[in-house]
Amino acid sequence: MASLKPIKLYSHKTGPNPWKVAVILDELSVPYKHEFQEMSAIKQEPFISVNPNGRVPAIEDPNTGIILWESGAIIMYLIETYDKDGKISYPSGPEKYYEWQWMAYQISGQGPYFGQAVWFTRFHHEQLPSARERYVKEIERVTGVLDSWLQKHDWLVGDKCTYVDLMFVPWAKTAHTTMGDFIDFQGKYKAYFAWMEKLEGRDSVRKVFEEKAQVAQ
Amino acid sequence: MASLKPIKLYSHKTGPNPWKVAVILDELSVPYKHEFQEMSAIKQEPFISVNPNGRVPAIEDPNTGIILWESGAIIMYLIETYDKDGKISYPSGPEKYYEWQWMAYQISGQGPYFGQAVWFTRFHHEQLPSARERYVKEIERVTGVLDSWLQKHDWLVGDKCTYVDLMFVPWAKTAHTTMGDFIDFQGKYKAYFAWMEKLEGRDSVRKVFEEKAQVAQ
Repeated sequence: MASLKPIKLYSHKTGPNPWKVAVILDELSVPYKHEFQEMSAIKQEPFISVNPNGRVPAIEDPNTGIILWESGAIIMYLIETYDKDGKISYPSGPEKYYEWQWMAYQISGQGPYFGQAVWFTRFHHEQLPSARERYVKEIERVTGVLDSWLQKHDWLVGDKCTYVDLMFVPWAKTAHTTMGDFIDFQGKYKAYFAWMEKLEGRDSVRKVFEEKAQVAQ
Repeated sequence: MASLKPIKLYSHKTGPNPWKVAVILDELSVPYKHEFQEMSAIKQEPFISVNPNGRVPAIEDPNTGIILWESGAIIMYLIETYDKDGKISYPSGPEKYYEWQWMAYQISGQGPYFGQAVWFTRFHHEQLPSARERYVKEIERVTGVLDSWLQKHDWLVGDKCTYVDLMFVPWAKTAHTTMGDFIDFQGKYKAYFAWMEKLEGRDSVRKVFEEKAQVAQ
């Protein structure tokens, strides 16, 4: 889609969520440019005029004039606008609704709880083992739900990789890095792990996470 | 929509999320029937064949054959299927995308974090003041984001009440009840509180929460 103007992706060098959007943009061959933000900057003007919630990602799409925040909403917008051929989505139900279901599960069930596990492992100002344990268990539970589904299905929806499979990658990678000492992902969740390896082998994921590793240095 | 068969709503007598779906069904005059589940039952068969994540709400719609879980996905499905006249939604962008944005914020930013505040206040097996404080502060932050938006807008999207306004009601009501001793919602977040009073005054919300109060007894 070379005739498109690049989408501005308000991003962060280490946080997982903006990179979720980058993978989808790369899959759809939509040009984009990261606008990296400091954590301190996103909670004040001018950024909170873009996103009053003070979080990344957010996008500005000069091709449509849309400004949008929340990764789930951004990705659904990109799919509806730039995936009319259904490269990584199904255009109608019931698969479209199942995609929404797994999208909602990723943003409400994976992201927030995986984030709390990382918080109580790395960032909380006092050690609270029972709080950390609560969220480590939740990572195991969510991973187990995915694993049980993937024991019977190659992909979350239909018979191809869709955007909802890809949405789970960034937080899964963060969990593998941060929680690998506590959770045996490869040994306990074999179907999940094989699915994640397929996803990590895709050109889009490889390319985007190579860039993430470079900018994080 | 009297010719429709009732939707089966897998529900819970006290948890907030199924009642979010009930409000939308009532707004759209779609017939439905609660199928109340015990917390212990939703983590095993037969329910996990409906929802492998072991959570309510889930729905079975005999009019379309769809079985779906995750409240955000269920509500988007109901809107697309049963709100073609746009009673509580906008059928196209940019308002449609803004609705998705606030929907995503409700399910990923309000629900999970408000839930953690309730957990560490009422249910965790040891007192962890700094964990509870983390989530009480997050309720204040999210409420402040809504309040700042509502100081300048009557509704979250466009110039009418849409499904995304209504989605915030159940967790807000739970927070007012559970956290009212810690947070002065009415005094500190006036625009938010006035919006919530408008929403709580709607026929759908009054009716659904009267039923919730009755079944919780």
